[in-house]
Amino acid sequence: MIVTIVEIYVKKEHINEFITAILDNRQNSVKEQGNLRFDVLQSLDDPSRFTLYEAYENKEAVKAHKNTPHYLKWRENVEEFMLSPRKGIPHKVIAPSDKSLW
Amino acid sequence: MIVTIVEIYVKKEHINEFITAILDNRQNSVKEQGNLRFDVLQSLDDPSRFTLYEAYENKEAVKAHKNTPHYLKWRENVEEFMLSPRKGIPHKVIAPSDKSLW
Repeated sequence: MIVTIVEIYVKKEHINEFITAILDNRQNSVKEQGNLRFDVLQSLDDPSRFTLYEAYENKEAVKAHKNTPHYLKWRENVEEFMLSPRKGIPHKVIAPSDKSLW
Repeated sequence: MIVTIVEIYVKKEHINEFITAILDNRQNSVKEQGNLRFDVLQSLDDPSRFTLYEAYENKEAVKAHKNTPHYLKWRENVEEFMLSPRKGIPHKVIAPSDKSLW
């Protein structure tokens, strides 16, 4: 399993549009075969700061996600909403190791 | 719901001990009444970098966690394993908003 944690800073005036766009991406992403989880979080202290928590079964599923129409559409849509380039950090899972808990 | 994302840099020579300590903390934390999730991740690119993904029902549950014997024991145990002070960032949940998905 691979979890990519993506940190995104959004311009204040585009926060609502960003949320609409990421919810559309999420709704389609969780239907992908290799997707295990796709959480969208907003920092309590800084409403401009969002975190995506994207869990996939393996590297192939991560790669497939990046070729889906909903991901490509999202990437293009949010370009102008972001304050700076987003940063995604891939992780291996130490726990829970049981896939049924994902 | 509140998700705290904690970033921890661990000294290379203490990675195995750190993993043992965090798995003990996790095993007890997931039994807490207000806990929804407690994931332990390790960066693929930097094995010294760990992320905890701690989801709780509300602020009271987060506060209660920080007073549990297993949290206090963990905090003391890992002090010498860390390269720098750990950083925890609390988030609100945008999605999934359904508690049953946590």
